[in-house]
Amino acid sequence: MAKTSPFAPDRFPELPTVKGLRLGAAAAGIRYRDRLDLFLAEMAEGTTVAGVFTQSRTASPPVAWCRRCLPAGRARAIVANSGNANTFTGPEGRDAVARTAGAAAGLVGCGAEEVFVASTGVIGEPLPAPRILDALPPLHGRLRPDAWEEAARAIMTTDTFPKGAGATCRIGDTRVSIAGIAKGSGMIAPNMATMLAFVFTDARLPSGLLQKLLVRGCERSFNCITVDGDTSTSDTLLLCATGAAGPHAPVERPGDPALRDFRRTLDSILEDLARQIVRDGEGATKFVTITVAGAATRRAARRIAMSVANSPLVKTAIAGADANWGRIVMAVGKAEERIDPDRLSIRIGGVVVAENGARRPDYDEAPVAAHMAGREIDIDIDVGVGRGRATVWTCDLGHGYVDINADYRT
Amino acid sequence: MAKTSPFAPDRFPELPTVKGLRLGAAAAGIRYRDRLDLFLAEMAEGTTVAGVFTQSRTASPPVAWCRRCLPAGRARAIVANSGNANTFTGPEGRDAVARTAGAAAGLVGCGAEEVFVASTGVIGEPLPAPRILDALPPLHGRLRPDAWEEAARAIMTTDTFPKGAGATCRIGDTRVSIAGIAKGSGMIAPNMATMLAFVFTDARLPSGLLQKLLVRGCERSFNCITVDGDTSTSDTLLLCATGAAGPHAPVERPGDPALRDFRRTLDSILEDLARQIVRDGEGATKFVTITVAGAATRRAARRIAMSVANSPLVKTAIAGADANWGRIVMAVGKAEERIDPDRLSIRIGGVVVAENGARRPDYDEAPVAAHMAGREIDIDIDVGVGRGRATVWTCDLGHGYVDINADYRT
Repeated sequence: MAKTSPFAPDRFPELPTVKGLRLGAAAAGIRYRDRLDLFLAEMAEGTTVAGVFTQSRTASPPVAWCRRCLPAGRARAIVANSGNANTFTGPEGRDAVARTAGAAAGLVGCGAEEVFVASTGVIGEPLPAPRILDALPPLHGRLRPDAWEEAARAIMTTDTFPKGAGATCRIGDTRVSIAGIAKGSGMIAPNMATMLAFVFTDARLPSGLLQKLLVRGCERSFNCITVDGDTSTSDTLLLCATGAAGPHAPVERPGDPALRDFRRTLDSILEDLARQIVRDGEGATKFVTITVAGAATRRAARRIAMSVANSPLVKTAIAGADANWGRIVMAVGKAEERIDPDRLSIRIGGVVVAENGARRPDYDEAPVAAHMAGREIDIDIDVGVGRGRATVWTCDLGHGYVDINADYRT
Repeated sequence: MAKTSPFAPDRFPELPTVKGLRLGAAAAGIRYRDRLDLFLAEMAEGTTVAGVFTQSRTASPPVAWCRRCLPAGRARAIVANSGNANTFTGPEGRDAVARTAGAAAGLVGCGAEEVFVASTGVIGEPLPAPRILDALPPLHGRLRPDAWEEAARAIMTTDTFPKGAGATCRIGDTRVSIAGIAKGSGMIAPNMATMLAFVFTDARLPSGLLQKLLVRGCERSFNCITVDGDTSTSDTLLLCATGAAGPHAPVERPGDPALRDFRRTLDSILEDLARQIVRDGEGATKFVTITVAGAATRRAARRIAMSVANSPLVKTAIAGADANWGRIVMAVGKAEERIDPDRLSIRIGGVVVAENGARRPDYDEAPVAAHMAGREIDIDIDVGVGRGRATVWTCDLGHGYVDINADYRT
């Protein structure tokens, strides 16, 4: 087993109860014995759903299933397993998804197309669906509103700590809850979503509105993180709204003033979960925040920041606490976005290292080296051509990553 | 110092004499004492030149200088140093290039714009130009036609062996030579060129024709390798033709039948040098050949192959001799090129692992595991939509890469 991330919190956070939601986990023996590997959530009748998924061309059968179910905007259950990604598994893989959804639908009393399914783990090995089908009925009998930590543990793979975030907020005068769990540690370079994250609220929101809120929130959270630049085949982010909090003013548009507090709270929960994934990045010893300003557009800023965040040379330098800022120059250059090299400036830990296209004449490496020796590394880049700005989060690349991944399956 | 690559040859290859060319190397003390770090080549009057350079937006002042000189198509000297990339060094960096070119021009008796300059090493530190200016006159006095190995050593940075390749061929009835040297070990994901490579011939070829031959050859050699996906700021590939071999039939078009042997020989020398760079990739223990067929176009095939070659999860699996082909599926999927997942097939070491979108039912991992334990790994992928095909070469990502790069500067 990999060592626990130095960023692991002392304990799992307290999450609020989301009315209309019950959840739980079981050890189904999908890959390992006696380890939680199956997650089930049941939502109240009338629950709406939004989702974003991997852009991979080899997306998994569960992702394809969720995409087909999403347009109806209704969800009554989520089934997720770890230990096997059920990806590149042919017709048997598709059949396993349909049987899993059907079994859960029978327990909940809904249509199979209201059951969302997700799988994470090894790619290419047949999923032992019977183990899931056997485990579901007793698990369904044990569902309860507060099983957040078990649920978060059941979807872990190389994760070293379970990830959750939640808060309450108001829509008009009604108090509503938002809470969710996520997993992800390697194969993290989300492209419209991340590995697995399930977020729930008891607000009453139509699915079209929910989808807009989720896409917008994902754009500044999960789509701004990277561990290794490898995009998973299973990335799935779902947001379910049970509507059970009690009556509140109906809202139809994302810009509705009554939604301001909800939007802010949702965005911060999504960002919190996304950052937890980076903090548990495989072998991570440093948490790195990279902000690019002065780019032509926000998209250009994010591409440049991602080029820096994914550069093996930048990441290994950070692992070695080496203030090798020349590699940041390299990674900015290879992004192929418009920049002005003669106005390019770089700050590390708030200290100006380079400006106007060259190292600062009076550059003193001592404070920068001290910052690099810490756990939280801040890199600020201005590329000098416009007002586009973006922040991304990543971790270092050191021996821990190689240890975990050079021998993952054995 | 890093351990010598397991792919290092027993000795430097015998290279043919290129008439009209003299070369040599010196220890100028640019970064380290008593280590060859300065390369000088002098070419006969009338030498034509072709070049391709990095596409980086933070390209170095030497690259900018070469780009300005290239349209005239004439070269009389090349000066290259290791130990300092002279990149992101502001006006002083540009001045250092001009002074270096001017000094070499004075020694050779040509215009400064006929001197091509290249630098490789640390980015962002001021280049100590006076050390180069001091070292050039005695070095010029010692130039000789056969100093290939010294020259190849002088441009090394983290390289663990000097790289050269050469052969003779015929244009019509005239025997001509082609020979060159290259360096590169990390920051290798050439984008229209590679770190540094200098190739010479004594054929007589106009610069426009030379450029076409070089672009075409580069496309299937240096542009098909990757070590770490990080594109250097200094990539420079030059091809000089001295015309000193003796009279041969004039050739004007790349397709001229009289050029067939020359083209074939040039292409194989470029491929040989490019493959040597991968074999000396930082920390490399495996040499990996990835061929993608069945893609929509050759460009799509190369993008998919590069996505596999640059995937940290694929590279660490190879380092661990783990036949984790599911990661190949992931890397094919994230390339965002058109594929048919249900026709996707993967062979490792010639053994069919997966076909028609799933693992082969009778898959036996034993022969694949045996292949993965070797030094030369072959991965063949068919994506099932067209006739586009490309081969790229890369190496594994293991602890050696982290060792070298987590503490490069100290």
